Amino acid sequence: MDETKTLARFIAQSRWSDVPDTTRHEAKRAILNWLGCAIGGCRDDTVERALRAITPFSGPPGASVIGRAEKLDTLNAALINGLSSNILDFDDTHMKTVIHPSVPVAAAALAFAEHHPVTGAELLHAFILGVETECRIGNAMPHHYAAGWHITATCGVFGAAAAAGRMLGLDAQRMTWALGVAATQAAGLTATMGSMSKSYNMGHAAKSGLLAALLAERGFTSSDRALEAPRGFLRVLGGEVKTSEISGRLGETWELSWNAYKPFPCGIVLHAAIDGCLQLRQTHALSAQDVKRVEVRLNPLALELAGKPAPAAGLEGKLSARHAVAVALLHGKAGVDEFTDACVNDARVTAFREKVATTPDSALDKAAAIVRIEMQDGSRYTREVPHAIGSLEKPMTDSDIEQKFIDLAAGSMTQSAARAIADQIWSLENLNDSAELPRATARVPETH
Amino acid sequence: MDETKTLARFIAQSRWSDVPDTTRHEAKRAILNWLGCAIGGCRDDTVERALRAITPFSGPPGASVIGRAEKLDTLNAALINGLSSNILDFDDTHMKTVIHPSVPVAAAALAFAEHHPVTGAELLHAFILGVETECRIGNAMPHHYAAGWHITATCGVFGAAAAAGRMLGLDAQRMTWALGVAATQAAGLTATMGSMSKSYNMGHAAKSGLLAALLAERGFTSSDRALEAPRGFLRVLGGEVKTSEISGRLGETWELSWNAYKPFPCGIVLHAAIDGCLQLRQTHALSAQDVKRVEVRLNPLALELAGKPAPAAGLEGKLSARHAVAVALLHGKAGVDEFTDACVNDARVTAFREKVATTPDSALDKAAAIVRIEMQDGSRYTREVPHAIGSLEKPMTDSDIEQKFIDLAAGSMTQSAARAIADQIWSLENLNDSAELPRATARVPETH
Repeated sequence: MDETKTLARFIAQSRWSDVPDTTRHEAKRAILNWLGCAIGGCRDDTVERALRAITPFSGPPGASVIGRAEKLDTLNAALINGLSSNILDFDDTHMKTVIHPSVPVAAAALAFAEHHPVTGAELLHAFILGVETECRIGNAMPHHYAAGWHITATCGVFGAAAAAGRMLGLDAQRMTWALGVAATQAAGLTATMGSMSKSYNMGHAAKSGLLAALLAERGFTSSDRALEAPRGFLRVLGGEVKTSEISGRLGETWELSWNAYKPFPCGIVLHAAIDGCLQLRQTHALSAQDVKRVEVRLNPLALELAGKPAPAAGLEGKLSARHAVAVALLHGKAGVDEFTDACVNDARVTAFREKVATTPDSALDKAAAIVRIEMQDGSRYTREVPHAIGSLEKPMTDSDIEQKFIDLAAGSMTQSAARAIADQIWSLENLNDSAELPRATARVPETH
Repeated sequence: MDETKTLARFIAQSRWSDVPDTTRHEAKRAILNWLGCAIGGCRDDTVERALRAITPFSGPPGASVIGRAEKLDTLNAALINGLSSNILDFDDTHMKTVIHPSVPVAAAALAFAEHHPVTGAELLHAFILGVETECRIGNAMPHHYAAGWHITATCGVFGAAAAAGRMLGLDAQRMTWALGVAATQAAGLTATMGSMSKSYNMGHAAKSGLLAALLAERGFTSSDRALEAPRGFLRVLGGEVKTSEISGRLGETWELSWNAYKPFPCGIVLHAAIDGCLQLRQTHALSAQDVKRVEVRLNPLALELAGKPAPAAGLEGKLSARHAVAVALLHGKAGVDEFTDACVNDARVTAFREKVATTPDSALDKAAAIVRIEMQDGSRYTREVPHAIGSLEKPMTDSDIEQKFIDLAAGSMTQSAARAIADQIWSLENLNDSAELPRATARVPETH
C-alpha cells in the first residue's frame, strides 16, 4: 500500500554490509560491460548529432563523455553516455523484464561521480540499488513493454534517481520525492525503435532521473505515492500491476542475479545459432569456402523477429539469422565489425548468405538453435545449442566480459589502458574516487 | 493515417498571411497573460528550489528567468519559466481539453528567442502553431486526462517542439522527427498535483520539446509515425483516440478561439461565485461587516472539487468556496494576495467564512453559481451568474488582461515598465527582435 515510501526507505537505508558478495561481483561485471558499450558507441553518428544539438547549451564541463575528449555538464553527460551505451545493442539484459539495467543507472551515477565524489564501494552500492529499483518496478508491470513502453527508459528513470539519490545521501522523505519526480518524467515509446530516438530514450531517462535526485535534495516536493496512487505511475503506465513485486523480500533477493551479457551485438534470439556455428567451426577447423550449405533451425517466433533474409544495412543485419550465420562461419566471430553497413553488403558475405537456409522449429525454445552444416566433400556436422553463451544458464565468464570490453575499447585506447580500467573495476571497492573510471576513458584528441 | 507527417507539414509550411487577425490577437492576449503569470510566480519557493538544483549545471547564461535577474542556458530557462508560469494556477485554459496552452509553448519560444532571434511576427506565428499542435493532439484523446495524464505536460511537449521547430525553420521531415522526439519524452502524472512537481511537469515539457526541435535540426531521426503508430503516442497514452482531430480542417480552425483567461487564481468552478459576490458588493456598495450570512449554490461536482470548508493553506484556499466568497466580500477582490497562507489564516477572513454556507444545486452548470446575501438589517440580495467573467461566453477584455498583467508584475517592476511591455505585446508584429520581451522583465538585483 505504501510501495513508494517502502522502496525509498530501502534505498536510503540499505547497508553495504548487507549486499552479498555475488551481487557486488555481478555489479562489477555489469559496469565493465556497460563501459565497453559506451566506448564502443561513442563515435556513432547518433552521438555526433546529439552533441551538436546539446553542446551549445551545456554547462560547466565537469563530466566526461565516455570514450571521447569532450566534457559536458553532469546532466548532459548522463544523457550522452546513456545514449551512446545503448547504440550497439550490446548492453546487458535483465531477463525477467528485458530492461537493459546498467544503461540509465551507470550513465547517471558515473557522470554524477565526477561532480559529487564517492568511493568505488559507494558507487557500486548506489549502482546496485539503482538496478534493484528499476527492475523491481519493471517486474510489477507485466504488460508494460507490450503496451508500447520502452521499459528501460520508463523504469530506468527511477534507477537513475535511486542511484544518484543514494550518492547524495537523501533521507527517506527526499528519496520518496526523488522517485516522485522520476515518475512524472517517465517516458519512452517503443515506436521509436529503428531510429536514433530509441537510444535517446535511455539518455533522457538517465538525465531526468539524476535531475529528480538533485531537485529532491533541495526539498523539491512530489507525491509520496507516485508509484501506487490510483493515478500513479504503475496504474497509468502499467494497467494491471503486481505491486508486491516492488517491496516483497526487499534486501533479500537481488535483481542483478537475473542479468545477462551479450557476446554478440545482435538480436538475442540469434545468439544460439552464432554460438553453434562458432563451436562447429572451431571444433572441426572448418573452412568457410568448403561449406556447401547450412541449415539453421529456430523457434518460429525467433525467426519472425530475426529472419530478415537479405539485410541491406547493419541494423537489419542484427535481425538476420542468415547474416549472423554467414559472418560466424566466414569471420569466426560476430562482433561490432560484423554488423556494420559495410559488412552486411560485403560480396563474400552476401554470397555466403545464399548457402544459408532457415527452418522454423516449434520444438525449440526461443533462445535455442540447431545448426547443420554440409561440406562440399559431403561431410556433415550438427550442433544443438539449448542455451547460448551469454544466457543465464551459460553466462559469459569474467574473462569473456573483460575481452569484450577490450575489443570495444580498441578504437579509443591501447589494450594495456583498457586492461588497467578493467582491473580498476574488478577491485572497485578499493578505489578512493570512482570518478577515475569515466576520466580514464577520455580519448586524447587526435592531432591533425 | 499519416497524422504526424500531416501535422508536421502544416507547422513547417503555414503562412503568416493565412492566420486570421482574430487568432493573432488572441495569441497576444495569451502571451500577455502568460508573461504576467510567469512574473507573478517567479519568486515562489518552487522556483527557488529548482534554481538551486539546476543552476550549478546550467550552460551559457543566454536566456532570462522571467521576472528575475538570473540568466540560464536556453533549455534550463525554458524549464524554469514553464514552471514559474503555472505556479499561481492563473494561466490560460483551452476549454475543450483543460490544457493550459501558453505555458509550455511560450516558455520554450521566448527562451529560444534569446538564442535564435526572430521577429515579433515570427514569434507570434510559432506560438500560434505550437498551441494549435498541442491542443489538437489533446482533442484527439478524450480519456487521456482522466486516466491520470497531466495533459498540459504530455501535449505541451509537442507544442514546444512545434514552436521551436518553426522558429528554426525545420522542413517537414525534420519537423516530423521533432514531433517524434517530443512523443517519446511525453510525460507527467496528475498524481503529482498538490506538490511542487505539478508545475515542474510544465517546465519539463517546455525544455524537452525545445530540445526535440534542436535535435531534429541536426538530423536526429525518430519515428515518422510517432502519433498514430499502433504503439505510438496516441494509443499508448490515449487509449481510445480520435485521430481525425489532429488533421481535420487544419489551417481552417484555430484552437486559440477556445482559450480562456482566469480573472481569479483559484479553481475555475469558483469563478462564478466570486464574480457574483463582487458584482453585488459593487452594485449595492455592501460593507462586509454588515453581512449577516451568505449562501452560495454550486453544482454538486463543483462543490466536491472546491468545497473545502476550512482551508489551512493558500493552496487549499484555491479550492474553498467559503474562502473565495469571504475574500471577495471582505477585500473586494480575489487576486494572488487573497490565496496566500497568510490570508487564508487571517482572523477576519476565518471569522467571515463562518457566515458562508454552501448548497449543492444540480440544476446549475458546473461553471455557474447563485449567491444570496442577507444583511444585518434584513435586506437581501441575490445574483445568479451563469457564466463568470473569464469564461468563453464572457471573456476578459483586453484591458482586463492588461490590468491582470500589471497587477502580477507589480512585485517586479513599476507600473509604467509593465505598461510598456504590454504595449510591446499589443503590437508584437512590429517588434524586430522578440527577445526584447523576456529581457524587459528582468528584475534588477536588489542591493543589500
